[in-house]
Amino acid sequence: MKKKSKYNVAVVGVRGAVGGEMIKILSERRFPADELRLFGSARSKGETVSFGTSTLAIRELEFRADEFQGIDLVLSSPGSSVSKRFVPQAVNAGAIVIDNTSAFRMDPSVPLVVPEINSEDIGWHRGVISNPNCSAIMMLMVVAPLHRECTVRRIVCATYQSTSGAGLRAMRELEAQSRDVLASKPIKKEVFPHQIAFNLFSHNSPVLTNGYNEEEIKMIQESRKILHEDGLSIVTTCVRVPVFRAHSEALVLEFEKNLSPENARKILARAPGVKIVDDREKNYFPMPVESTGQDDVLVGRIREDLSRPNGLALFISCDQLRKGAALNAIQIAEHLIHKST
Amino acid sequence: MKKKSKYNVAVVGVRGAVGGEMIKILSERRFPADELRLFGSARSKGETVSFGTSTLAIRELEFRADEFQGIDLVLSSPGSSVSKRFVPQAVNAGAIVIDNTSAFRMDPSVPLVVPEINSEDIGWHRGVISNPNCSAIMMLMVVAPLHRECTVRRIVCATYQSTSGAGLRAMRELEAQSRDVLASKPIKKEVFPHQIAFNLFSHNSPVLTNGYNEEEIKMIQESRKILHEDGLSIVTTCVRVPVFRAHSEALVLEFEKNLSPENARKILARAPGVKIVDDREKNYFPMPVESTGQDDVLVGRIREDLSRPNGLALFISCDQLRKGAALNAIQIAEHLIHKST
Repeated sequence: MKKKSKYNVAVVGVRGAVGGEMIKILSERRFPADELRLFGSARSKGETVSFGTSTLAIRELEFRADEFQGIDLVLSSPGSSVSKRFVPQAVNAGAIVIDNTSAFRMDPSVPLVVPEINSEDIGWHRGVISNPNCSAIMMLMVVAPLHRECTVRRIVCATYQSTSGAGLRAMRELEAQSRDVLASKPIKKEVFPHQIAFNLFSHNSPVLTNGYNEEEIKMIQESRKILHEDGLSIVTTCVRVPVFRAHSEALVLEFEKNLSPENARKILARAPGVKIVDDREKNYFPMPVESTGQDDVLVGRIREDLSRPNGLALFISCDQLRKGAALNAIQIAEHLIHKST
Repeated sequence: MKKKSKYNVAVVGVRGAVGGEMIKILSERRFPADELRLFGSARSKGETVSFGTSTLAIRELEFRADEFQGIDLVLSSPGSSVSKRFVPQAVNAGAIVIDNTSAFRMDPSVPLVVPEINSEDIGWHRGVISNPNCSAIMMLMVVAPLHRECTVRRIVCATYQSTSGAGLRAMRELEAQSRDVLASKPIKKEVFPHQIAFNLFSHNSPVLTNGYNEEEIKMIQESRKILHEDGLSIVTTCVRVPVFRAHSEALVLEFEKNLSPENARKILARAPGVKIVDDREKNYFPMPVESTGQDDVLVGRIREDLSRPNGLALFISCDQLRKGAALNAIQIAEHLIHKST
């Protein structure tokens, strides 16, 4: 990217949970944006969004090559099918697209990046950089620094995923259903296939013939790509829980050789973007209500795996709209502009 | 126990979540009870409980030897310290006590029983039989039948534990806090150390010096005792989630040799007390709102562990007030009276 003092930025999917967070974080981190062009669906056309002191109108994404004219950088978080359609056009128009959907993540010509882990992969992009799946990002933020010092052989993960991962409508469904259950009224299901209020269920993505759902497969495949470890063994169980925002994960890690909880704690204490919350006496560990709104991935319950040598068990929580999505995308953008010449 | 047509039964801790369920299940299963003597704390003294068509008054447990005079069988679910005090007296008075607390579970002279798994251990009791921890019972209901056909070497478990495991007051706290959060009012914490509404946290039992909480250690130690497998490798992460009733668990099992998901399904289909809920096409798997009120442990997501050979991953849900506590205790009682001579 050509070095400039300010960049023309487009956000696609601005009305979504992640899109909204992107606008907020661009402002918080004083991203050097000149023009900020906002795209939404036909539904959002003409609505406005506050950005700092200005009020910006939302345009309808019309899949025309000229609508990205003059844009340096696109932060994209619509549906995957929308990304597949518009991203090539935006790249043709000269923009670099950081795409938060699964559309291009496993494309070998597209870098899949968590800046703290593999920022060097940004260098070989050809116009598109993919932002990984939120559950994979948060897991790797903790696994990667440990892996660097003591090779990880296998990851066993069970997730506790909030409704925000399924968007704003899913968060509203949790709220509406909770009110109905508390009022002993029948609930309405519109977003999720099952009751989410005071319940939990296997992740709502399609289940493949091997019995894994797409979310689980994304976590496995994307983690291997980000870590450049094609043979890394991972098994995941993804579960949706009645939490508004921020995902949590129970991890059991198997290392090549012994890594004590004390050493793991030291490594994680200096890992960027990671915060240790691990007070055994107070029974105080990572929780979604506390990770919500934070940039850091919270990690605690750091303990020896009692079931085998060279293992560790941990519990993590992360605001997946921020580090799991919007923040990670904007960190990639920041890398791009700092490396621009 | 001496064979009779009807038995004098006492229930201790009748006002608790498990005690209430015991009364209900005794009635549902038409347990041959002659006298039903109900004990509670000083607080519950004089309150009444419905049992079939009768109304029974609650006595205060006064820790006197004579208060269990004439009782054949005690179903006990007060606090652990209460059990430690009254159980020896009840046994001295000639009763057999089925105790749901952790007080005697790891005592080598006390059988720890899940009837579907180790009913033979009932035979060597000396007056006390312990009812295992709820999270251990539900896990073993699924693990034991598989273990019998294909030795399990290691269990990795992450729990999703409902508030009912912490009693009725905890369930009410979830309700009250949920109302407060939805009304944007500050929440009150009385039972749990952290907000439970729309949140989750590491299990609220004390954390030991090795970093495991007592619930996790109970699951490990009790599972080994029930399966008679002192060397079985188990690692667990116990988490409290905002669900009123019924626990869930994500399990990853390592076997001595290959056990295909198809064969596991066949074994579980004929396992008593287990029900397969595993519809991949409909994304329909075990959920706490559906296991609530059911006797069976629901199991689904039965799939190969992609991360190593000879492994399976599963997801289970169980009404831990029933099979995890009250039902299991009454099943032990039924075994006792059927074996009585």
